Amino acid sequence: MPMPLTKGILDNPNAERIRRVAELAKSKARRKTGRFLIEAPQAVREAIDLRPEIVQDLYIEIDEDGNTASARAAEIASTVFSDKSGDRSRIYVHYVTERVMSAISGDAQGIAAVASSEGLIGRLSGTDPRALAAGSDAPLTIAAFWQVRDPGNAGTVIRTADAAGASAVVFVDDCVDPLSPKVIRSTAGSLFHIPVLRASVSELLAWNGDHDGEVLAADVRGTDELTPVPLPQLLAADAGKTNTLRSILFGNEARGLDEAILEDCDGIVSIPIYGKAESLNLATSAAVLLYSLAMSSHMRTM
Amino acid sequence: MPMPLTKGILDNPNAERIRRVAELAKSKARRKTGRFLIEAPQAVREAIDLRPEIVQDLYIEIDEDGNTASARAAEIASTVFSDKSGDRSRIYVHYVTERVMSAISGDAQGIAAVASSEGLIGRLSGTDPRALAAGSDAPLTIAAFWQVRDPGNAGTVIRTADAAGASAVVFVDDCVDPLSPKVIRSTAGSLFHIPVLRASVSELLAWNGDHDGEVLAADVRGTDELTPVPLPQLLAADAGKTNTLRSILFGNEARGLDEAILEDCDGIVSIPIYGKAESLNLATSAAVLLYSLAMSSHMRTM
Repeated sequence: MPMPLTKGILDNPNAERIRRVAELAKSKARRKTGRFLIEAPQAVREAIDLRPEIVQDLYIEIDEDGNTASARAAEIASTVFSDKSGDRSRIYVHYVTERVMSAISGDAQGIAAVASSEGLIGRLSGTDPRALAAGSDAPLTIAAFWQVRDPGNAGTVIRTADAAGASAVVFVDDCVDPLSPKVIRSTAGSLFHIPVLRASVSELLAWNGDHDGEVLAADVRGTDELTPVPLPQLLAADAGKTNTLRSILFGNEARGLDEAILEDCDGIVSIPIYGKAESLNLATSAAVLLYSLAMSSHMRTM
Repeated sequence: MPMPLTKGILDNPNAERIRRVAELAKSKARRKTGRFLIEAPQAVREAIDLRPEIVQDLYIEIDEDGNTASARAAEIASTVFSDKSGDRSRIYVHYVTERVMSAISGDAQGIAAVASSEGLIGRLSGTDPRALAAGSDAPLTIAAFWQVRDPGNAGTVIRTADAAGASAVVFVDDCVDPLSPKVIRSTAGSLFHIPVLRASVSELLAWNGDHDGEVLAADVRGTDELTPVPLPQLLAADAGKTNTLRSILFGNEARGLDEAILEDCDGIVSIPIYGKAESLNLATSAAVLLYSLAMSSHMRTM
């Protein structure tokens, strides 16, 4: 279940509709249409559960016997059909053959969706911090990434920020498109859990300043003016503090942060290296920093 | 500098020697010859600095003008030539053209080395924990990975364990070959910083038991018998303790740890999820756990 009539199954991989869906793998088509592609059961399920209002079309692969090719895809379809009057009721479900699904995406695992990107990736300026707090009084931590360029890294850090309970992710300046299929896959659904916003460096600094927040740069070296505070020392200093808003700004995976940016931040935090490694990569740094701050904040407020 | 005579430069990508080097990308050739390939300046430099006794041959790319193609490669060559009587003096330096280097590896960035794998990846059984302590009295943390299969993950966790000051990495049961080129690249040199050992699950458990150590499994669910201790609680409980040896066992990137393995461990530790993410990936889990334990141990012993 559901068992569609064979004649309703889309079987032409060259059909205009299918070509338009496949083109959403490219950022140009996404910009032009205001739509993006969500592949594979996990991400499609999270989108339909948490952001049903943006999902427009669902593509489900049917095997030669007329059954849904993936059991997880069938489950997702049933949540759409059972929502008779809600947001999910307006999602259009298309059944497609294997060759059509292959034309849509090589990574769909039996299910893909097309969604509207309108309003999904907002701008930090003008965002009310209370809207990010989700009714909680806990301190807000914002995970900001400057010029993150690798899609796998971008997805992983969104997932890490989500798990660590950050209030938002901010992509600063010229970053990879968070709606590229590879980023979405790497978020494992977290793109639909946590607000992802865009900002310039000056917007980030001004927004934090306007709301009594601070921006700490993650960097090992620091500048002539600003010496990094080692993370364990920051955690110890936090113990007596009840800060309400803090943004951690991470640099580009290859170049880190420019000195001019470091000097504009309220402080710099470094992760100590206890062994012989020269440095940590971006995803590892984000995991260590965001989780240490989250655990220490949760222990204080327990 | 150095300026080799043009006639000394290897220019035949099909030469027997070059084909044998290129074959070291395959695990079968590595097993058969007891040699492995190290690509690119960072890894080659770390190998020559820290494990010169295993390096046998150095391949350096020369450009059309007869100069070393990469400045970092030239620096590495000069450390070899200046070590007149030490371990580095027996390293054989070969100059090769661009097409020969391309035949050796697409990721060499101007320099590659061939090294002996003998004794590099030891067995945990029979290893004296004091040999891993490097003269220090600090508690030993061992980072153990069960059936890690993805080369990028394997390399990243070795690098993270190194940075966090772990005493050794143990690859448990059937893991990816730590000497595969992609693993070595992902370690960013850490393969030559930290001992990497192999063990079966029962060896890991017995070795820790024999040396008054404990094995904690990293797992979110636990079993009917063993409930996971949340990481913040473990850190708090550690505060009064001076444990001397602890191994953290991480599961396979897709399947985690088998229930039978979980039940044989001394305890289970879980990373709390503060947001809506379902789970963390292996590299993120290792970063959070190994670094939290390292920072809390360093703060206690300061």
